[in-house]
Amino acid sequence: MMDIVCLDLEGVLVPEIWINVAQKTGIEELRLTTRDISDYDVLMQGRLKILRKYNLSLADIQDVIATIEPLSGALDFLSELRSKTQVLILSDTFTEFAKPLMSQLAWPALWCNNLIVDESGMIADYKLRIRDGKFHAIKALKGLNFRTFAAGDSFNDLSMIGEADAGCLFRAPEAIVKSHPHLKQVTTYREFSSVIQEFLEG
Amino acid sequence: MMDIVCLDLEGVLVPEIWINVAQKTGIEELRLTTRDISDYDVLMQGRLKILRKYNLSLADIQDVIATIEPLSGALDFLSELRSKTQVLILSDTFTEFAKPLMSQLAWPALWCNNLIVDESGMIADYKLRIRDGKFHAIKALKGLNFRTFAAGDSFNDLSMIGEADAGCLFRAPEAIVKSHPHLKQVTTYREFSSVIQEFLEG
Repeated sequence: MMDIVCLDLEGVLVPEIWINVAQKTGIEELRLTTRDISDYDVLMQGRLKILRKYNLSLADIQDVIATIEPLSGALDFLSELRSKTQVLILSDTFTEFAKPLMSQLAWPALWCNNLIVDESGMIADYKLRIRDGKFHAIKALKGLNFRTFAAGDSFNDLSMIGEADAGCLFRAPEAIVKSHPHLKQVTTYREFSSVIQEFLEG
Repeated sequence: MMDIVCLDLEGVLVPEIWINVAQKTGIEELRLTTRDISDYDVLMQGRLKILRKYNLSLADIQDVIATIEPLSGALDFLSELRSKTQVLILSDTFTEFAKPLMSQLAWPALWCNNLIVDESGMIADYKLRIRDGKFHAIKALKGLNFRTFAAGDSFNDLSMIGEADAGCLFRAPEAIVKSHPHLKQVTTYREFSSVIQEFLEG
């Protein structure tokens, strides 16, 4: 069987993008993430409304993202993993936001979404490629006879972890860890690597 | 829409692996490829029989593959493309063969197959992840709402190119070019990039 390891992006390989945008812009309302609000559309429409209110364009947000670095140890973890097996990042973020981070991570495969930007450079809307995209990606990969492993830290990762042949939580908040006691959970890249290695050898 | 560009490996980014193995080992019978024999199972079972006849192990073949380099210009072409869009290599080769070439290509995403190796290190058999895997990969990607582009040089690339939203032949032999006059065909990475760029902007 051919294996594929599917990883969430924010919180797993890079910091939460919106929390960084909130810090840099000083707009506290942008601090909420999928860890706090499980309905992604509610969360994103709220974010877009806030950006319009403060007149922040895509370029403004990209300026902030360009200053974000991957989590400490993430590049080594990911590079080692990519030399051993197929790795696919499944994220609810947007191509337009992810690029400077993907460059720092040596361009791993990333399946996410696209923004809709108007002529003035403001983010008019967003386009989810597909509802519950992480879950459907795992389903499609299984349909192609891949053996799948999935890991993430948020509400929006639970369906893909549940659908995958194996998986774990990485640095998930207490609430998620406690409500999902059947899931393995790890907090360091060393533990993470060894849980994935077990899967690869299984 | 989120785009994904699916590329064949051998003949498109790296030389034909088996032709190189034939050259280095001097075994002319290993020279046939999917360009010559369209039924992949017939081709592979023939190759495995020849390897057994000459007592060549997986390690012997890997030694040869370790001396192969990507095609001239392939790394630059691929790196530029990966900075612009998602790229996925769809190949009928095997993880065990591809690794030294993937390392030289900076670890692009690769969906292929696995070999079955016995205790003595001989290749006992091979396992196709799925029949007509390139075609089914494109179908699955379309099901996930990706806009797909596919390119290759051989018989086994025609079904994926046909299924994709757009595509072309790259350095295909005359026989394939002539029998598929409706397909765009390019022979340099410069032309290749501009055909893909058209797709990305379309």
